[in-house]
Amino acid sequence: MKVLNPPKGFRDFTPEEMIVRKKVIALIEETYISYGFDPIETPVLEYWDLLKGKYGEEAETKLIYYFKDPWSEKWYALRYDLTVPLARFLAKRSFPLPFKRYHIGRVWRHDRPQRARYREFWQADADIVGSIYPESDAEVINVTISALRKIGFNDFKILINDRKLMETLLGQIIKNGDFFSIYRAVDKLDKIGKEGVVEELKRLGLSQEIIEKIFGIIRFKGDLDSLKDFLEETPYYNEEVKEIIDRLEEIDELLIDKNKIEYSLSLVRGLDYYTGPVWEVKISNVEFPSVGGGGRYDNLLKIIIGKDLPATGTSLGIDRLVDAGRELGLFNFDEKTLTKVAVLCMDRRFYKDCWQITNELRSNNISAVIDLMRRKFDKQREYANKKGVRILVILGEKEFKEGKATIVDRELNERMEVPLSQLITMIKDILSS
Amino acid sequence: MKVLNPPKGFRDFTPEEMIVRKKVIALIEETYISYGFDPIETPVLEYWDLLKGKYGEEAETKLIYYFKDPWSEKWYALRYDLTVPLARFLAKRSFPLPFKRYHIGRVWRHDRPQRARYREFWQADADIVGSIYPESDAEVINVTISALRKIGFNDFKILINDRKLMETLLGQIIKNGDFFSIYRAVDKLDKIGKEGVVEELKRLGLSQEIIEKIFGIIRFKGDLDSLKDFLEETPYYNEEVKEIIDRLEEIDELLIDKNKIEYSLSLVRGLDYYTGPVWEVKISNVEFPSVGGGGRYDNLLKIIIGKDLPATGTSLGIDRLVDAGRELGLFNFDEKTLTKVAVLCMDRRFYKDCWQITNELRSNNISAVIDLMRRKFDKQREYANKKGVRILVILGEKEFKEGKATIVDRELNERMEVPLSQLITMIKDILSS
Repeated sequence: MKVLNPPKGFRDFTPEEMIVRKKVIALIEETYISYGFDPIETPVLEYWDLLKGKYGEEAETKLIYYFKDPWSEKWYALRYDLTVPLARFLAKRSFPLPFKRYHIGRVWRHDRPQRARYREFWQADADIVGSIYPESDAEVINVTISALRKIGFNDFKILINDRKLMETLLGQIIKNGDFFSIYRAVDKLDKIGKEGVVEELKRLGLSQEIIEKIFGIIRFKGDLDSLKDFLEETPYYNEEVKEIIDRLEEIDELLIDKNKIEYSLSLVRGLDYYTGPVWEVKISNVEFPSVGGGGRYDNLLKIIIGKDLPATGTSLGIDRLVDAGRELGLFNFDEKTLTKVAVLCMDRRFYKDCWQITNELRSNNISAVIDLMRRKFDKQREYANKKGVRILVILGEKEFKEGKATIVDRELNERMEVPLSQLITMIKDILSS
Repeated sequence: MKVLNPPKGFRDFTPEEMIVRKKVIALIEETYISYGFDPIETPVLEYWDLLKGKYGEEAETKLIYYFKDPWSEKWYALRYDLTVPLARFLAKRSFPLPFKRYHIGRVWRHDRPQRARYREFWQADADIVGSIYPESDAEVINVTISALRKIGFNDFKILINDRKLMETLLGQIIKNGDFFSIYRAVDKLDKIGKEGVVEELKRLGLSQEIIEKIFGIIRFKGDLDSLKDFLEETPYYNEEVKEIIDRLEEIDELLIDKNKIEYSLSLVRGLDYYTGPVWEVKISNVEFPSVGGGGRYDNLLKIIIGKDLPATGTSLGIDRLVDAGRELGLFNFDEKTLTKVAVLCMDRRFYKDCWQITNELRSNNISAVIDLMRRKFDKQREYANKKGVRILVILGEKEFKEGKATIVDRELNERMEVPLSQLITMIKDILSS
């Protein structure tokens, strides 16, 4: 029965998974807010016409979910990223510039489902609209580094390149080349290897000589000083190249952790709309595609909404961060519930009193459950254990007669009696210790 | 240019709106967690076959967004509620029972866009799966009351009825009646008035005499004692009716605020799948459709996944709560940003030092912005004012020479000088006061 599964490539999340996901999202959100980004939200559907022609050929012919509305003649599409919706969002609104927004939400791509690749996945984006200056690129790269650190990742690299640099270099190698197709071929280097990329470039009609020249460039990896040295020794070094490097230097000087930065001329990013610096995040010690990336896109808003608004932004992939963190043992998924207390009622005659106490715990923001199945004491206890609730509050005739409750802390394996009047204080103490 | 708008009935949310929405969602979530509900998530798309036949005729012929996947022969639908996805979620998983989950997310209905009615809207659901007992109905009604109170609503009513009661009463008036159609007609009483409902019932082929008998029942509104008295005086009172009332009494005894409860025999709820108690939330002093509701659905999981799992649940509509709160003046939407501090750099020579201080604020979880536009001091200040940032930190040559910063608290209209070493402590003090 197929209807008992979610659609292929789509996933459910259990409480265990949600507890980790919500933590990761909260840490990213906290970081984005600390950098002065404010939240916005947009619909999951956009008019198909808005997305058309924005992401390149592969997106349109294979990846975007679009469909005719069953109730009208309109064509809708599920959003493919959060950047084009941001552009539309700004069409009829104006904010003090720079406008800094974050947006955490799902996007959809009809990719082949495989490890770390889902059809429905969550992105956490932070973008700065309105500034042409390298300060803003530095800021979105810094917020990326800060968010990763806050989640608990210490060993990662931000790979940086520049689309304008690539254009300038490639422009001297190939006249009137289709750079986008070359970018998309080069972008697959990690996936299909050098030979695969050579094949793709040949298919684009490039000669062996030109392909060798391209590889002569894209093989570079290193820090900014080495990049400068490298470029100065190529025949392509000129005033334009120098200006681009000077700009990268201005970004570099403002980065909060230079050890994490590596310049890589094979990094190009798959999307068409980038116009300047681009970057990607690679977590070390785990075989994994990038967990995020971004770049400058100074023309996209002009194209979509006709406003001359330069922009730069970064995006983290929640699902891949969770997957990578799981592989590295950063998250252990052993928390099965957010519930801290189970009130066990030994005697049905006192059920209403137990109910009352449970509600008092809840009013004090202590998450608590009480039996809803009219079970005997042992079964109530079994339920609490299975659910993974830390604290048991045991109440029976003796307890109510003496105005006391028995508390069992399953984590520390401790048992104590407390006056009912001190129950809440005591549980708060246990939970905060 | 149509593509510059979101699809009709769909909305964007600005930071001002998001700040309020996120608060409302956080308060509901906190309440749900305190009652022992754990989070789950499901995809926005489901197979169309899953949703088909679950919500009644109107949903299928007018309201559900469904479409053929452009990349396969499969038919998908945007989820219509969070209840059917919950059923599917449980098809191949087992949890200790009762399974208490909350789920906050969007659903889609192709309704006619109008006041408080959107095509994409957010629901916050809390459901208990596995318990047949009235304790669980009481718990989901209580969590509804607690959440509303926590948001700040004090004046509201929970209207309660029982589908089984209606079936028993109507069954004595009409033999072999199509109760679902009658429910759907009666459900429109608020919308189309008594005459409108009479017309609809006539169209169902019911005689004037029967329609009068139906109105003789559904006119009842009052507390549980009055309901008992009312029913005892009708010709329909019998053992079955008594049992249903006894069960409602068991729920009633466990409710945390009886002043908020009103029994109303005209309340039936539009969805087909309810089997027992049903309720709806009406905010007082505002002309508004219900902001939430729920009920018991003991057969739905059996029908969908073949498991004998009784269930009951409640749902709050985020969008309507926000709209109602806005009308009542509960939220004023005057917070334009989450950013608390703007670092104003008087002299470009010290930009890197200002950058450094901004980053220290951020590391201490104080949200801060710094100029990214190479603006003069006045323009930096203007930006901070327009954005609505509370605290200005002014840094220039004098300040760095003396190791000080000037702080301006725009809210209290205060200005002070502090040593740089105490900047963070001082700002934390201001923000927490």
